[in-house]
Amino acid sequence: MATTLQNMRKEPDSEKPVAFIDSTELTKWSFYRALVAEFVATLLFLYITILTVIGYKSQTDKDKPGTDACGGVGILGIAWAFGGMIFILVYCTAGISGGHINPAVTFGMFLGRKISLFGAILYMVAQCLGGICGAGLVKAFHKTNYNKYGGGANELAEGYNKGTGLGAEIIGTFVLVYTVFSATDPERKARDAHIPVLAPLAIGFAVFMVHLATIPITGTSINPARSFGTAVIYNKEKAWDDQWIFWVGPFIGAAIAAFYHEFVLKAGAVRSTRSSTNV
Amino acid sequence: MATTLQNMRKEPDSEKPVAFIDSTELTKWSFYRALVAEFVATLLFLYITILTVIGYKSQTDKDKPGTDACGGVGILGIAWAFGGMIFILVYCTAGISGGHINPAVTFGMFLGRKISLFGAILYMVAQCLGGICGAGLVKAFHKTNYNKYGGGANELAEGYNKGTGLGAEIIGTFVLVYTVFSATDPERKARDAHIPVLAPLAIGFAVFMVHLATIPITGTSINPARSFGTAVIYNKEKAWDDQWIFWVGPFIGAAIAAFYHEFVLKAGAVRSTRSSTNV
Amino acid sequence: MATTLQNMRKEPDSEKPVAFIDSTELTKWSFYRALVAEFVATLLFLYITILTVIGYKSQTDKDKPGTDACGGVGILGIAWAFGGMIFILVYCTAGISGGHINPAVTFGMFLGRKISLFGAILYMVAQCLGGICGAGLVKAFHKTNYNKYGGGANELAEGYNKGTGLGAEIIGTFVLVYTVFSATDPERKARDAHIPVLAPLAIGFAVFMVHLATIPITGTSINPARSFGTAVIYNKEKAWDDQWIFWVGPFIGAAIAAFYHEFVLKAGAVRSTRSSTNV
Amino acid sequence: MATTLQNMRKEPDSEKPVAFIDSTELTKWSFYRALVAEFVATLLFLYITILTVIGYKSQTDKDKPGTDACGGVGILGIAWAFGGMIFILVYCTAGISGGHINPAVTFGMFLGRKISLFGAILYMVAQCLGGICGAGLVKAFHKTNYNKYGGGANELAEGYNKGTGLGAEIIGTFVLVYTVFSATDPERKARDAHIPVLAPLAIGFAVFMVHLATIPITGTSINPARSFGTAVIYNKEKAWDDQWIFWVGPFIGAAIAAFYHEFVLKAGAVRSTRSSTNV
Repeated sequence: MATTLQNMRKEPDSEKPVAFIDSTELTKWSFYRALVAEFVATLLFLYITILTVIGYKSQTDKDKPGTDACGGVGILGIAWAFGGMIFILVYCTAGISGGHINPAVTFGMFLGRKISLFGAILYMVAQCLGGICGAGLVKAFHKTNYNKYGGGANELAEGYNKGTGLGAEIIGTFVLVYTVFSATDPERKARDAHIPVLAPLAIGFAVFMVHLATIPITGTSINPARSFGTAVIYNKEKAWDDQWIFWVGPFIGAAIAAFYHEFVLKAGAVRSTRSSTNV
Repeated sequence: MATTLQNMRKEPDSEKPVAFIDSTELTKWSFYRALVAEFVATLLFLYITILTVIGYKSQTDKDKPGTDACGGVGILGIAWAFGGMIFILVYCTAGISGGHINPAVTFGMFLGRKISLFGAILYMVAQCLGGICGAGLVKAFHKTNYNKYGGGANELAEGYNKGTGLGAEIIGTFVLVYTVFSATDPERKARDAHIPVLAPLAIGFAVFMVHLATIPITGTSINPARSFGTAVIYNKEKAWDDQWIFWVGPFIGAAIAAFYHEFVLKAGAVRSTRSSTNV
Repeated sequence: MATTLQNMRKEPDSEKPVAFIDSTELTKWSFYRALVAEFVATLLFLYITILTVIGYKSQTDKDKPGTDACGGVGILGIAWAFGGMIFILVYCTAGISGGHINPAVTFGMFLGRKISLFGAILYMVAQCLGGICGAGLVKAFHKTNYNKYGGGANELAEGYNKGTGLGAEIIGTFVLVYTVFSATDPERKARDAHIPVLAPLAIGFAVFMVHLATIPITGTSINPARSFGTAVIYNKEKAWDDQWIFWVGPFIGAAIAAFYHEFVLKAGAVRSTRSSTNV
Repeated sequence: MATTLQNMRKEPDSEKPVAFIDSTELTKWSFYRALVAEFVATLLFLYITILTVIGYKSQTDKDKPGTDACGGVGILGIAWAFGGMIFILVYCTAGISGGHINPAVTFGMFLGRKISLFGAILYMVAQCLGGICGAGLVKAFHKTNYNKYGGGANELAEGYNKGTGLGAEIIGTFVLVYTVFSATDPERKARDAHIPVLAPLAIGFAVFMVHLATIPITGTSINPARSFGTAVIYNKEKAWDDQWIFWVGPFIGAAIAAFYHEFVLKAGAVRSTRSSTNV
């Protein structure tokens, strides 16, 4: 374990803050490999989750013969699809790209000085392209059903105002990015055995939990690449009109999580070290 | 691993019993940080879980057009929301505050001499304030729907008497606090690899299990801050009338768990060490 | 990790086969403590699971006003209750009593020489008493509803013959006890990191899986204490008539699992060691 | 941990590529033991999962009195059965046979040089025989219900063309085999604590996720032994007509995953090592 943790400290997402602009990045194969991994992971994430959404809606459509209201995986199954995919994709890609699969997570990691500005922008481009391709595959499989059943796009549900939708995305993303910060904190990794081992499961569960709570409000994004990819493929006015909510909300939520972790919880660590040293 | 465990022994929730009143606490930033962490965690716990409850009831309301009985996450999804949130919040806050998020757990830890009396009281205040704010956010999002669908408040269901409700809360909290004691026992942590690593997952599952069993009886509290926060925001007579059940029950259950762990299971450890040394 | 595993080897459920009759057992407090732990764990197991069953049936009773078919935790929630409780109870009691909570597991461990004959018999008595008390608590809480909704008792469902019921219990218990043997094998514990850490989760999932498959056939026992406890409290002819299935089936399944692990998988280990030494 | 990982390196599924044809294999008991373990594991996999499918369909049959649409474990429960069984079977057999339980996984491992050609063929034979026996047990238990409810056989659902079915199997198997490669990569095992410990859980979840998404399209195979076993026992024209999809799809998906892991992700590792050494 000691060895493992020492190795971990050499990883980019560990202790030393990353430079704001890191020009050597572009010469490293490992950086391009990380972009490929983020693209593939976001593609698979959208493919599996949106296929689950469309399949469920198709199986429970009241206007189709041979379906019944309980016939599909249910909203609970949809929430599992989002959370479970994040679990396995973080499990698989954490060692390659850090396993962001989400521009809001990348933004949080940028604020926490764990990825450079340039790296963050390219990560987000790779994630959005992956999101478009993943949603595109679902449309290719489901054809007219894709648009008929809403394309898995995030839209504000009837009866909720924009402020509520934005608030739901802010707090939901806070839950996710706060969990990611807790899971990748080098001090905690070294101290508590559960931190490094359960990391992908806890991050996946954070996504699962937020979906249970906010699917009725916005369909739950907390991931701009997920909302952008489905909006591009679905391409209806309402999805584009509400699109800003799924960028502004997650980015604000990620920023608050970064602030909470770095300035409330970490500042504490610094002060408590000082006081115990000085006194 | 050896290193990790030695580090763990220096943590406050480890071996050495905490003084009844610890005046040095107030001078430490780490103590205030722990209170902030408990406040934020309980806020997020109430926010996600009560939002899930109200969203489910709103989506399956028979009197509303366009809903159907299977349309939401189900009671199973609600049970997952409570258990899953405890999993990720214990995962994130265990290293900061011990991850109580529940006055009954704090009371149990106080009886087990893992937190001072003063610390315990401030923890409970932070948890209750967090609970009120979390439930308040849900009301702000759902407006009139919040009170219409019962506010997520704990009340004794029709057909059960007070004794049954109290008993359900006592045994349910026993299951939870017994799991917490097993997860934080320093001897077990050192001996069995699964104890430190799976701790947050086992504690989360304990909450999940109790919800499966007792949602039909009391809606399941086993957490006074959860019942108090919703009662303050919902503010109807029945919720206040039954409120005592959700304080007395959890505290008795936690006390029995502390007794069982410290005087039955631990006393055994002492006796067996003695006998093997003396004979 | 190395240290942890060496410590594990000193545990009773590790390498050295246990004597057939071990008279020193009776003088040790740790043995009585293990009996108490098995009693309490089986009590909690029956309490939570049978309460979930009765609560679900009560919430979905078509003849009661205000209920609907999707209103409870569902058969899936019941399967989770059984599997999840085994997860947390094995997590909590593995270091105290080995975490059997099931006479069939105890019988398998006896055949694998991990517990003495006398110890096994007292374990089974503690488990059966715990089962009766757990089911009794559910009846005390639910009163007439308990018998009205079948008391959570195991009975062969209509349309299946006794041979099918027996077969389902044999294979189901094989799945469980095979998982237990895999989880407690000292060689595997030392070699694969997932074996000791995930042990309680894998054993819990084994129980969850078997319930998904055989609830429609026998209600799923794979645990004689669970069937016996509910039969005593429910006390109807059909439950007693079928009772033998839930003792004979699980014991045969456990015996086959012990044979498969000790004589097929382990014998292999011995032979392969020999051949690599001799050649 | 260090010790554990060194031991792991001596395992067949570790670092050194396996010879294309390994004639010494046949003289080792451990090889035959691995075949037995694959046979038994695939038998149990089909038995539990197909029993769950038939039981669910039998419990929710609209033409039978006393059933209702929500009465069984649901499609979500079926997805859990497949994913959960893979979790516990990989947990139990990883140290014996590598825990493939699936010809597509074996094919991927063959392409990754982790099993010889001859070993791979015998593994697949053992898996297919296990699949036939597992499905046969379910038919023996359910008699005429087995064929009445579709025998758990994989068939292309109405409304989807063959290309979609094939594509769904290719991408689904890619998700599974990519997870398997990530879980068994010796470098990652040594670096990230979550890789070796969570391996069986992540692989099980990959299976669970794919079932959520593609049950409406093909019933989800991603495992030729699962489709072949049910086709042999069910033995209807449609299941045989579509059978090729469930061999060609999974094998293509496994090949792409092997290519992605070995030539994109691993090649990167080699190049980045070189560049950091040379520059």
